[in-house]
Amino acid sequence: MIITIRKQATSEERAQLIELLCRISGSLHPMATTSVGKREVIALDGSSIDAQAQILLRQQPAVEDLLLIKTPYQLVSRAFQVEQSSITIGADHGCDVVTVGGTTASPVIMAGPCSVENREQILSTARAVKAAGAVALRGGAFKPRTSPYQFRGLGLEGLHMLAEAREETGLPIITEVMEPDMVEAIAEHADVLQIGTRNMQNYPLLLAAGRHSQKRPVLLKRGFAATLDEWLLAAEYIVAAGNPNVILCERGIRSHDPQTRNVLDLTCVPLLHNLTHLPIIVDPSHATGKSELVPIMSRASLAAGAEGLIIEVHEDPAHALSDGRQSITPTQLHGIVGEAEVLARMLSREASLVSVA
Amino acid sequence: MIITIRKQATSEERAQLIELLCRISGSLHPMATTSVGKREVIALDGSSIDAQAQILLRQQPAVEDLLLIKTPYQLVSRAFQVEQSSITIGADHGCDVVTVGGTTASPVIMAGPCSVENREQILSTARAVKAAGAVALRGGAFKPRTSPYQFRGLGLEGLHMLAEAREETGLPIITEVMEPDMVEAIAEHADVLQIGTRNMQNYPLLLAAGRHSQKRPVLLKRGFAATLDEWLLAAEYIVAAGNPNVILCERGIRSHDPQTRNVLDLTCVPLLHNLTHLPIIVDPSHATGKSELVPIMSRASLAAGAEGLIIEVHEDPAHALSDGRQSITPTQLHGIVGEAEVLARMLSREASLVSVA
Amino acid sequence: MIITIRKQATSEERAQLIELLCRISGSLHPMATTSVGKREVIALDGSSIDAQAQILLRQQPAVEDLLLIKTPYQLVSRAFQVEQSSITIGADHGCDVVTVGGTTASPVIMAGPCSVENREQILSTARAVKAAGAVALRGGAFKPRTSPYQFRGLGLEGLHMLAEAREETGLPIITEVMEPDMVEAIAEHADVLQIGTRNMQNYPLLLAAGRHSQKRPVLLKRGFAATLDEWLLAAEYIVAAGNPNVILCERGIRSHDPQTRNVLDLTCVPLLHNLTHLPIIVDPSHATGKSELVPIMSRASLAAGAEGLIIEVHEDPAHALSDGRQSITPTQLHGIVGEAEVLARMLSREASLVSVA
Amino acid sequence: MIITIRKQATSEERAQLIELLCRISGSLHPMATTSVGKREVIALDGSSIDAQAQILLRQQPAVEDLLLIKTPYQLVSRAFQVEQSSITIGADHGCDVVTVGGTTASPVIMAGPCSVENREQILSTARAVKAAGAVALRGGAFKPRTSPYQFRGLGLEGLHMLAEAREETGLPIITEVMEPDMVEAIAEHADVLQIGTRNMQNYPLLLAAGRHSQKRPVLLKRGFAATLDEWLLAAEYIVAAGNPNVILCERGIRSHDPQTRNVLDLTCVPLLHNLTHLPIIVDPSHATGKSELVPIMSRASLAAGAEGLIIEVHEDPAHALSDGRQSITPTQLHGIVGEAEVLARMLSREASLVSVA
Repeated sequence: MIITIRKQATSEERAQLIELLCRISGSLHPMATTSVGKREVIALDGSSIDAQAQILLRQQPAVEDLLLIKTPYQLVSRAFQVEQSSITIGADHGCDVVTVGGTTASPVIMAGPCSVENREQILSTARAVKAAGAVALRGGAFKPRTSPYQFRGLGLEGLHMLAEAREETGLPIITEVMEPDMVEAIAEHADVLQIGTRNMQNYPLLLAAGRHSQKRPVLLKRGFAATLDEWLLAAEYIVAAGNPNVILCERGIRSHDPQTRNVLDLTCVPLLHNLTHLPIIVDPSHATGKSELVPIMSRASLAAGAEGLIIEVHEDPAHALSDGRQSITPTQLHGIVGEAEVLARMLSREASLVSVA
Repeated sequence: MIITIRKQATSEERAQLIELLCRISGSLHPMATTSVGKREVIALDGSSIDAQAQILLRQQPAVEDLLLIKTPYQLVSRAFQVEQSSITIGADHGCDVVTVGGTTASPVIMAGPCSVENREQILSTARAVKAAGAVALRGGAFKPRTSPYQFRGLGLEGLHMLAEAREETGLPIITEVMEPDMVEAIAEHADVLQIGTRNMQNYPLLLAAGRHSQKRPVLLKRGFAATLDEWLLAAEYIVAAGNPNVILCERGIRSHDPQTRNVLDLTCVPLLHNLTHLPIIVDPSHATGKSELVPIMSRASLAAGAEGLIIEVHEDPAHALSDGRQSITPTQLHGIVGEAEVLARMLSREASLVSVA
Repeated sequence: MIITIRKQATSEERAQLIELLCRISGSLHPMATTSVGKREVIALDGSSIDAQAQILLRQQPAVEDLLLIKTPYQLVSRAFQVEQSSITIGADHGCDVVTVGGTTASPVIMAGPCSVENREQILSTARAVKAAGAVALRGGAFKPRTSPYQFRGLGLEGLHMLAEAREETGLPIITEVMEPDMVEAIAEHADVLQIGTRNMQNYPLLLAAGRHSQKRPVLLKRGFAATLDEWLLAAEYIVAAGNPNVILCERGIRSHDPQTRNVLDLTCVPLLHNLTHLPIIVDPSHATGKSELVPIMSRASLAAGAEGLIIEVHEDPAHALSDGRQSITPTQLHGIVGEAEVLARMLSREASLVSVA
Repeated sequence: MIITIRKQATSEERAQLIELLCRISGSLHPMATTSVGKREVIALDGSSIDAQAQILLRQQPAVEDLLLIKTPYQLVSRAFQVEQSSITIGADHGCDVVTVGGTTASPVIMAGPCSVENREQILSTARAVKAAGAVALRGGAFKPRTSPYQFRGLGLEGLHMLAEAREETGLPIITEVMEPDMVEAIAEHADVLQIGTRNMQNYPLLLAAGRHSQKRPVLLKRGFAATLDEWLLAAEYIVAAGNPNVILCERGIRSHDPQTRNVLDLTCVPLLHNLTHLPIIVDPSHATGKSELVPIMSRASLAAGAEGLIIEVHEDPAHALSDGRQSITPTQLHGIVGEAEVLARMLSREASLVSVA
């Protein structure tokens, strides 16, 4: 259930509404209002609120509108917002500005190494992916690694190197954040905060990504065994905490077959376009784990309607400190960018959205 | 290991080779030779045959060549045959002739109802899918159903109706076979024998499909929890039994998310192009289970390099006796066919194969 | 829906009922009656039969009783038969008679090699498992193998060796059947027909196992990616076709972790005891794929309430023609049998059933 | 690879060793020593360190011993420590002291509500589970919830209520921690820190649980789609960061069947006993999601060799604020405790460990 607050509502009227809501829903904690676009709303799970209580709520002076939404997620659902969200990247750091989602934008290609390894590597890679046509630079400074004995990234130092690469190339930068406490510090430098597959249900992290002052766009990767409902509820955590700028990223799910690292679930792209207004991009590198599959699965991802791609690129994949097996070269990236443009002209995005709805 | 037999080898030389092979491999049963193209070969699991035994084998007068293949599957592997197989459908029944696979053919769109329900339905649907641009007609006469209380198809009567539809429209027909004993009878009428997902490891059925006299092409669907190795070994059963005409069909695998009936594993398409010379088509209807997802996933399947599609079409999906929820209309099929042609022009098949190898 | 036919109903009254049923349910085929215990019944999917039609059915002179069952499976459901089924093995071949299921029987331990390899091996193993306390002998004569190049069993010759082992030891024999056409021939020799995991949804085979004249008990293994509903519907095929003697066998399901061949799903044992009256046994050999895990998982299976175990035993596991890695020795089997007796005394079967219901 | 440091090694010798190690392994960061029992060790991934480098390392004056371990996890592996770890709970808060693991201890039953709901509830439940025979009290104060609109626990207030319940009953308390920053604060009150299934790969949290000053035992739940290797590497993070007190907890993995919330993987218990010296307990409540299955799966878990159980208990399951469907009553818990004692007498723990090794 989403309640839109009347703009002119007094603070007493608001307090009265919130008190009523807590009583009706049995919540032990005060409800928070959230700003979405120009609206101020309160979202909650309305499944246990009966018809009589709804009438009572509608009569509250603070209430402008009350919308019932059947899914467990509310603010991210397409029932709440019909038009596709359009998210702006890079507005604050004097770099190129990139738009993800909406109905008119071309697919966005983000690229870069798995890890920032040293200053030369990231600067050189940034120039190469820019030349190849990528519009944003990815690079891990804080790396979640399965083993404590693997390289975990250069940390803040790596982040400064990314910022230097942005300054030189104009590419906005995307980097992963793993701890609630680091969100503000990383958001100061990064243009997009990535939340990785292992942290999709790290709720304190989601809340911090929702609440941080800069409201940077968050790239929320799908948990490798998450259902779409769980994923959308994770996005809801961020939006309900105050940050509407969420980009979903499919990166493969676990299966019984060891042939590929994961199974890329491309059907989720049109399904999500039906369920949510948030944009969806695809990471073919982690999904397949094999660089030779990246170009063709990039093509298939865009054909499925993805608003963009995030691809691991390394100038010398054989000597990468992490994920070399799945990294492509800048030359291969150039081919993918070219193909993406052809596909974009051919397959109008609007058509793909309509075909689902 | 694949041993090519010398054309001029005498029957004694052959017998001597086979006796040696049985001794070396510890097999309790005589080995059979198989004709592949113009070659006569013996395929076997060579993993336990050491270097010395290989020398002995090469010295046999019946042996022309001995090829070591590391995968458990042999005849279907790309290591055995580099060029993509091209399979001809419909040559025997005076209908249209269709080619699947190879490097020059356009993607093949096969379509029709889940079940043959009655004469009018199948004739009318055949006309409609022909008009929409499909080049082959699918229709179930013998239906595997999860419950014994569901409609199991019209049987031979349904097969005769399919044949009548072929006669009228010129479309070759594809239908499922479930029992080894029925293979010859169904092959008499059908142009392609479909082996369904639940029967992918029904070995007596695979052998019968390999041995039957007409050598009809076999559409081998992937088991819903099969690995690629298991799938290719199932194809190997058919080819080793004497029928090289196998078309693989991806139709989704089981996952933890109930949003879709199955997870369509499109990455298997380029992977299989790397592992085997057999053509691969995709069934987006069973994979997604939702008709609104079929057009966009058809597009993505072709972008991933699939040699064709098999799609459930019903003129009145709401009243289908089975699988109505996932059936599209002839009008929607027409859109898919048109899009397939555009994609085919844009994405040269050869390029997609090269990008993998 | 299960309709019990009045014993005194005339053939006209029966025909009238069946005609009415076909009309109401929209079935294109005549319905068959099945004998279950002393009752004659017609089972069907009643989900689409409304209240008015039910009244009409109850008024039919041929109808004694009409039972609505909510699950898709009918005859195997515990809603149809509250008391646990008790199935008798070995009554026809002059060997030991064994009871599986019911509320008083001890757990049944079946054991033997994966494959019958030769006469000496099977006779010697039969003596050894008998001495170790097993009450039935398993052994594969017709083997489903993932690769066409693996040993597929000795066939009918192997079956005769099993029969000889039964004659000497008194142990009833269990062997796999893969083809509908072979059911009668194998049932002539075997005391229990095993249907393997890859054939759980091989419907022609299930029907043949239901219809064959000897009505041998069928050991129905769970498909390695089957839901419980699908498994129970497979059992329903056999029972509805006329053979009520079905024993379910859990043998592990596929997962994402390569540590074990499969994941043994022991929770299905109490779940199934709640859903069905059929007995459930466990195969810890195929589930784990590692002989060192078999004893402890045998113990856990019985603690979960399994009515028995089927275990692969080989006198020389290192030299088995198949599945040596998961075969235990007769000595280890002896330990399991001893432990099973202690557990059976401790954990009354009735208690375990009650705790679920 | 695990290098044991000589006790008498000087700080220069240590520095020299660490410098050499960084050079050999290519690590960009200094290596840390860890105390394990009375030994001081350095653990690292030795897979890329060749024989010559090993000789060089052994010659270092700071090196007492160098142990090669083939698995990716080192300190938690049974190759490093053969004897089962025995972990002490509750030593610091003047409450009952409980031992988990080792070879002589009885299985440990921990129980309590999913969430602390209010003071009366937790005090009353604590008394009830104590009376039923449980030896530790579980209760969630900080709750990870799939939806932002669900009850997320009482926070620190809930923790104080748990501490009061400990004071009254003497039961040590177990509660979940979700944020690195909260570890110290929660460790002040709790006797065991639980890390939940969604946080198994939350590496900053694992490191904080390893480094915190009180070194509280950590109950590390298995990720719902984690492999055993990933799980053991997560435990390695905690141990390598300085806290050897880790208890593993199996709680079910995701599967294709919606019948149960998860699939309880009991085979992991003997497998883990083979791979690691850490104790393993089972959570049958989350694994099954159905209270009626908890007693029988508790029995099966202990039969599989689990060192303990953690069970959700509520005095009025129908009105629980979370997880009521899977909570049992104190009376049912009493039955489980009684059965556990009988099983423990019957199945000597030592025997179960030996049977695996």
